[in-house]
Amino acid sequence: MVTGETLLFVDWGTSNRRAWLVGPGGRVLQEHADARGILSVEPGGWDAAVAELRHVFEDVEPRLTLMTGMVGSNRGWADAGYVPCPAGIEDLAAKLHWVEPDAVAIVPGVCLRDPPRADVMRGEEVQVLGAVAAGLLPPNGLVCHPGTHAKWIEVEDGRITGFRTVMTGELFALLANHSILSDLLAGEAADGDAFRLGVDHGLGNCDLTAELFQIRARVLLGDAAREDAASYASGLLIGADLRAGLGRTRHDVVHVVGRPDLTALYAAALDQTGRRAERLDGDRAVLAGLQRLAETVL
Amino acid sequence: MVTGETLLFVDWGTSNRRAWLVGPGGRVLQEHADARGILSVEPGGWDAAVAELRHVFEDVEPRLTLMTGMVGSNRGWADAGYVPCPAGIEDLAAKLHWVEPDAVAIVPGVCLRDPPRADVMRGEEVQVLGAVAAGLLPPNGLVCHPGTHAKWIEVEDGRITGFRTVMTGELFALLANHSILSDLLAGEAADGDAFRLGVDHGLGNCDLTAELFQIRARVLLGDAAREDAASYASGLLIGADLRAGLGRTRHDVVHVVGRPDLTALYAAALDQTGRRAERLDGDRAVLAGLQRLAETVL
Repeated sequence: MVTGETLLFVDWGTSNRRAWLVGPGGRVLQEHADARGILSVEPGGWDAAVAELRHVFEDVEPRLTLMTGMVGSNRGWADAGYVPCPAGIEDLAAKLHWVEPDAVAIVPGVCLRDPPRADVMRGEEVQVLGAVAAGLLPPNGLVCHPGTHAKWIEVEDGRITGFRTVMTGELFALLANHSILSDLLAGEAADGDAFRLGVDHGLGNCDLTAELFQIRARVLLGDAAREDAASYASGLLIGADLRAGLGRTRHDVVHVVGRPDLTALYAAALDQTGRRAERLDGDRAVLAGLQRLAETVL
Repeated sequence: MVTGETLLFVDWGTSNRRAWLVGPGGRVLQEHADARGILSVEPGGWDAAVAELRHVFEDVEPRLTLMTGMVGSNRGWADAGYVPCPAGIEDLAAKLHWVEPDAVAIVPGVCLRDPPRADVMRGEEVQVLGAVAAGLLPPNGLVCHPGTHAKWIEVEDGRITGFRTVMTGELFALLANHSILSDLLAGEAADGDAFRLGVDHGLGNCDLTAELFQIRARVLLGDAAREDAASYASGLLIGADLRAGLGRTRHDVVHVVGRPDLTALYAAALDQTGRRAERLDGDRAVLAGLQRLAETVL
């Protein structure tokens, strides 16, 4: 049993969770990942779900357990609320939601409220502010986190000042799994001519819901190869994502973080806009953010 | 048993079919609708599926059976191909696909090929060209047929010269049935302030995949009412549909045809662009188109 000054950090998402047992100075002693996302936890099952995790770490009794991600949503353990933009790491620290006093806390999300604009994030804020704290990200920069709900996050003077969520990954999955395009989108999307054509179209046109149907029409009429459809559709959605996410930004460099296959596609698409993608180590960033938050309350 | 100069017209779609037994001069003697769409017909089951239909009409032996719709697709009875734009009713007549010589024919679809633009329709062409033939539609006009795959069809000198398909209905259904928005989109979409705000946004902005997520964020943050979400989302998608479908059209009147609930929403949205919607009687138009085609081959 590990005791004393260890900390338990959990990034608890909708379908997965990751956990790190951390020693003095933020050194990772042990890490773990499993598919116990928040949707798999029954109402009232949170204590047990955390006990399981401690058991994985040899029944550790950490000084502090700090959790981030969807565990703090209204479908999670407790609604940890949202800190409004602009939000720095000290704002998150001030609003930790304690589920067990002095022992277990959930980090709040960040929200944007500028009616009619409204947006929310939960998890990415720890990563981005952690990246700044660890020097992985300059205090002024634009972060892109592709995924089910892609996030574009503006950082100014080390604080999150604005952000935008784009449903790119979810829409691609809906189309691939349930739509008239599903047989065409069964293949893997990859960078190449078809992908770049799609990006071009998405960046330069405002007709996504029409262009999607053309993917099918072109294949039916023999004007495009069936095996290119997934890459073209991915490019089209990512192009539209960039258009919405980049907005009027003046940044020439975009810090991309996330799954390597996705960040590679976004890097290729950003290249088409004349911008440079710089990869950000997401794990290091999350750990740095949780460590910094832990230090503020210990 | 009805014999002699009767005609059997079938509009055979993906999930439904409609049929009319027609006498001299196009007079409807009897009509029928059922859920025997093409997807319910087993391979090799087409003769039986048509025999069923004849049985409904007291085992009629029509002079001619003429079919339109997805029955002529590569998932249907036989691939009836596509006639390229510009396409008039005589072009469809010249390319009827005979599955039984002189007795049973399927009307081809219409395609647009103007690389990289490509589009296909199957069924709407008979309706639109039939409407022109019957004087329900002027020989120069713009038709909007909302639905799963909304169609915007340009008619010049009585021929289809261009068209555009927008996946509006399918996307709304995907979002309502399978997405993170599904609990919010369970209600009925209706015209009103929320719908019109959505139309405005869709018409004036190019960020659909981002705006969709904001629907959820606004409700989470208390900035919008949960019960308005379906109407707003519907307005947003229809606004984006109009933007793609209207393009640079100079028509002030748009002829809308289809389900009354949908045409009402499109009429409201068109009103927001300063255009007037004129309802087109879809059944009469289809019947007129099939009658005209039948006359050319009898």
